[in-house]
Amino acid sequence: MTAIWVDGQAIATLPVQDRGLAYGDGLFETIRVQQGQMPLLSFHRQRLTEGCQRLRLAADIELIITELLGHARLLGEGVLKLIITRGDGLRGYAMPQAAMVRRIVQTAALPAYPAQNAEQGIALFDCQTRLARQPLLAGLKHLNRLEQVLARSEWDDPAYAEGLLCDEQGDVIEGVFSNLFIVQQGSLITPDLSQSGVAGVMRAALLQAAAQQGFAVQVATVSRAQLLAADEVFCCNSLYGVWPVRALCDRTWPVGPVTRKIQALAQGLMVGSCEA
Amino acid sequence: MTAIWVDGQAIATLPVQDRGLAYGDGLFETIRVQQGQMPLLSFHRQRLTEGCQRLRLAADIELIITELLGHARLLGEGVLKLIITRGDGLRGYAMPQAAMVRRIVQTAALPAYPAQNAEQGIALFDCQTRLARQPLLAGLKHLNRLEQVLARSEWDDPAYAEGLLCDEQGDVIEGVFSNLFIVQQGSLITPDLSQSGVAGVMRAALLQAAAQQGFAVQVATVSRAQLLAADEVFCCNSLYGVWPVRALCDRTWPVGPVTRKIQALAQGLMVGSCEA
Repeated sequence: MTAIWVDGQAIATLPVQDRGLAYGDGLFETIRVQQGQMPLLSFHRQRLTEGCQRLRLAADIELIITELLGHARLLGEGVLKLIITRGDGLRGYAMPQAAMVRRIVQTAALPAYPAQNAEQGIALFDCQTRLARQPLLAGLKHLNRLEQVLARSEWDDPAYAEGLLCDEQGDVIEGVFSNLFIVQQGSLITPDLSQSGVAGVMRAALLQAAAQQGFAVQVATVSRAQLLAADEVFCCNSLYGVWPVRALCDRTWPVGPVTRKIQALAQGLMVGSCEA
Repeated sequence: MTAIWVDGQAIATLPVQDRGLAYGDGLFETIRVQQGQMPLLSFHRQRLTEGCQRLRLAADIELIITELLGHARLLGEGVLKLIITRGDGLRGYAMPQAAMVRRIVQTAALPAYPAQNAEQGIALFDCQTRLARQPLLAGLKHLNRLEQVLARSEWDDPAYAEGLLCDEQGDVIEGVFSNLFIVQQGSLITPDLSQSGVAGVMRAALLQAAAQQGFAVQVATVSRAQLLAADEVFCCNSLYGVWPVRALCDRTWPVGPVTRKIQALAQGLMVGSCEA
């Protein structure tokens, strides 16, 4: 069962003039809720704040966080999806001077991912869709997601739990709804997202937590050759934690020891206490 | 006064789950209506049809056109904005198997552009925002328009009626809400839009009409140096027709004879009979 709130009211519709619809002029967050809490809230807040700055969205972050805390308590277990938009617009791209940011919250159950994804690892579909390079938008979880829609439409074979996305230069960026790490001689490397991609909350949390655990972690350009030569590969997001990658095209990997350690770390991050 | 229809009903809201909001998963058209007719309708239909094919949107184009014809008759003079989306979605980027395309029509008055824009020409603001290169989306009037929102936010000085957008390589692509032509030794050249940009309906109509009038017309890569060296420059869209460009940074142009001829051609195209 889904509950929906728009600007704090229990309504399920929004005006057609909303700039989120017209231009994708807004941001979203997908937040896992456990035992009424959002263990990764501080990372969601950080990304949302940065997104608002970069898109010049005058959102009341404190109000949003307060509402999310209330919704999470009511929900107990599941997912909160937050969308914020620049509100209603007149005709034209110019940001309205007195734009009223609109906030939309939807609840959902946690997606029912097969347990084997986490246990035995997944096969990545090799997407042909290439991500464009746009430093002004890279990293943000904004509402312009046609690239992901097209990429996700490339396969419907459930044998592939995720798809690999590269940029137009052929470098590795991310999964369609996950971030990616490779393990190289015990070091963790995740692709640089300054030109393309969504900087996931679990990626940020793992970068921090893995470094604290003594792992060498690095954000860098990752070529396709480097990915294929990696000792281990895994993907992550804030809903499922870590999935080992066991296959891409005809390359296969066993589930490696570093991946298992990071997977356990992710599990811990998803059940921590609320740290807003 | 604005009238709004959603799926043929006179309602002004849409469900929060619409994929147009969630992902910008849809297309739009902005259509000038004169004397109850839409002279450029055949070009709008063509772009919409191509957009639906490329985004795999199963829209009923005939139904949409029929509705637009009815709305145009009622409106008389003004602008129809059509948005189509992939309708309501479940969680996730995958296109729903039984997606019901949603159609939204809004009416508005014709924007009140200063008469001097067309008479004396305009100054272009030199936008720093660069358009990403994404051949899968280039040319389409899709709902992922954050680049235009950011570019349009770069200036608010009304001395600039439009902004110049280049791609990441620095080549000239278009205006923020217009297409661009340069005149070089009597020939018309408009930037190639296979990697970036929106292929405007007036651009398409002018390419056809100018060629029929005996002009040499060409779609090609246009460098910034080529733009600055051009004999004449003008921009166009389906609402205002043609505006001569008289300045960009410290380069100025007089309003040239070719621009005046194309401007007259555009005027004619905007008052033709309905050719759906």
